[in-house]
Amino acid sequence: MKKMYEGKAKIVYEIDNAEDYVLYFKDDATAFNNKKHGVLQSKGILNNSISTFLFKLLQSHGVATHFIERVSEREMRVKKVSIIPLEVVVRNRIAGSIAKRYGLSEGEELKTPLVEFYFKNDALDDPLMVEDHIYMMRLAVPEEVQEMRELALKINRLLKDFFLQKNIHLVDFKLEFGRSSDGHILLADEISPDSCRLWDVTTGEKLDKDRFRRDMGGVIESYSEVLNRMQRIEA
Amino acid sequence: MKKMYEGKAKIVYEIDNAEDYVLYFKDDATAFNNKKHGVLQSKGILNNSISTFLFKLLQSHGVATHFIERVSEREMRVKKVSIIPLEVVVRNRIAGSIAKRYGLSEGEELKTPLVEFYFKNDALDDPLMVEDHIYMMRLAVPEEVQEMRELALKINRLLKDFFLQKNIHLVDFKLEFGRSSDGHILLADEISPDSCRLWDVTTGEKLDKDRFRRDMGGVIESYSEVLNRMQRIEA
Repeated sequence: MKKMYEGKAKIVYEIDNAEDYVLYFKDDATAFNNKKHGVLQSKGILNNSISTFLFKLLQSHGVATHFIERVSEREMRVKKVSIIPLEVVVRNRIAGSIAKRYGLSEGEELKTPLVEFYFKNDALDDPLMVEDHIYMMRLAVPEEVQEMRELALKINRLLKDFFLQKNIHLVDFKLEFGRSSDGHILLADEISPDSCRLWDVTTGEKLDKDRFRRDMGGVIESYSEVLNRMQRIEA
Repeated sequence: MKKMYEGKAKIVYEIDNAEDYVLYFKDDATAFNNKKHGVLQSKGILNNSISTFLFKLLQSHGVATHFIERVSEREMRVKKVSIIPLEVVVRNRIAGSIAKRYGLSEGEELKTPLVEFYFKNDALDDPLMVEDHIYMMRLAVPEEVQEMRELALKINRLLKDFFLQKNIHLVDFKLEFGRSSDGHILLADEISPDSCRLWDVTTGEKLDKDRFRRDMGGVIESYSEVLNRMQRIEA
């Protein structure tokens, strides 16, 4: 396998003679655009399992993703895509950067889900974009932005309902999309407590990367709790 | 006259028994959200004259503004409006914050003008907003945003053509709009080298507040040059 790209939490490998990539999930945790770094034993294993579960769930509802199969504890086989350099964020409640940016209180529920696009660029701190910025910089065409927006909202409906059955509020999450060789837009990257805010409905307890960002401890315990609730068969 | 509001470069006065406000143009100059401050002798006089000229120009082309008349060197009578807390920015070329935010080169001309909305809030550093943020925070309704966008583009066409006749590129500018008591949206605030980027076409020389922001000197001389060229009768 040839290393194609190493990100903050994953490595992308190319396999000889194969049309696929292998994603390797690391235990590294970063926050505030790499200013904070840590290693959380087993995080990669948990995120691979959680992402696998959620990609399968979404695919069973007709969402096209890059997921092919989980091949080992830390490895997932995915279709080759060219990542669109946008972070697509869906918010159901106010939390994190949007609270800080506009001076809003964390926790407030939005009347309708909000979709935001950020330029995926660490050196620039992933700045917010309006659609015209995306077109100006030729990151995607209007039809692609429209498709990503609709996909993000569909994914939100599916994941929000799923997590609510597990007594978890899906507060917000970040998606990345890629273009496949045959010109389709596929959901890519991962879906895990690294990329979602997940709050216990009853206690309000955070079950996501904010525990790492805010030095709350119990990060791995929370990620495990999320996976356990996901795998629990509902009556 | 009763002081209603004191901003960074202007004071708004209410006149007894009158339906109007008086704007008083100060010599204060600020940049980087008040982190830099200076006093530029006669700037208020120049900006009152330049704004008066441009409001009259826009009104003669059917743009509704708060402008009534220039009443003294530093004073302008305007209609009472309730300011919509958005800064509406139109860009014809890349300069300033957008260059820094997305890592772009200053000076590049855009294929089509770009309209951006920022939350007018000093404490938050006037953050960028997508339209859904505006609606979420109830700063304006979609019809108002659409109207402000169209007005901003019309104003841009008029001002860009006007300045080009004066051998000046209108690079970008910031507008503010207000709601009048009878429910109309009026162009408000000022239009001056404090709120516009103006570059000499031939030399590329900056004739605007960037001279203050970037410690280039000759601020007042540049503002005077802009006013002189504006007032020159074309053959």
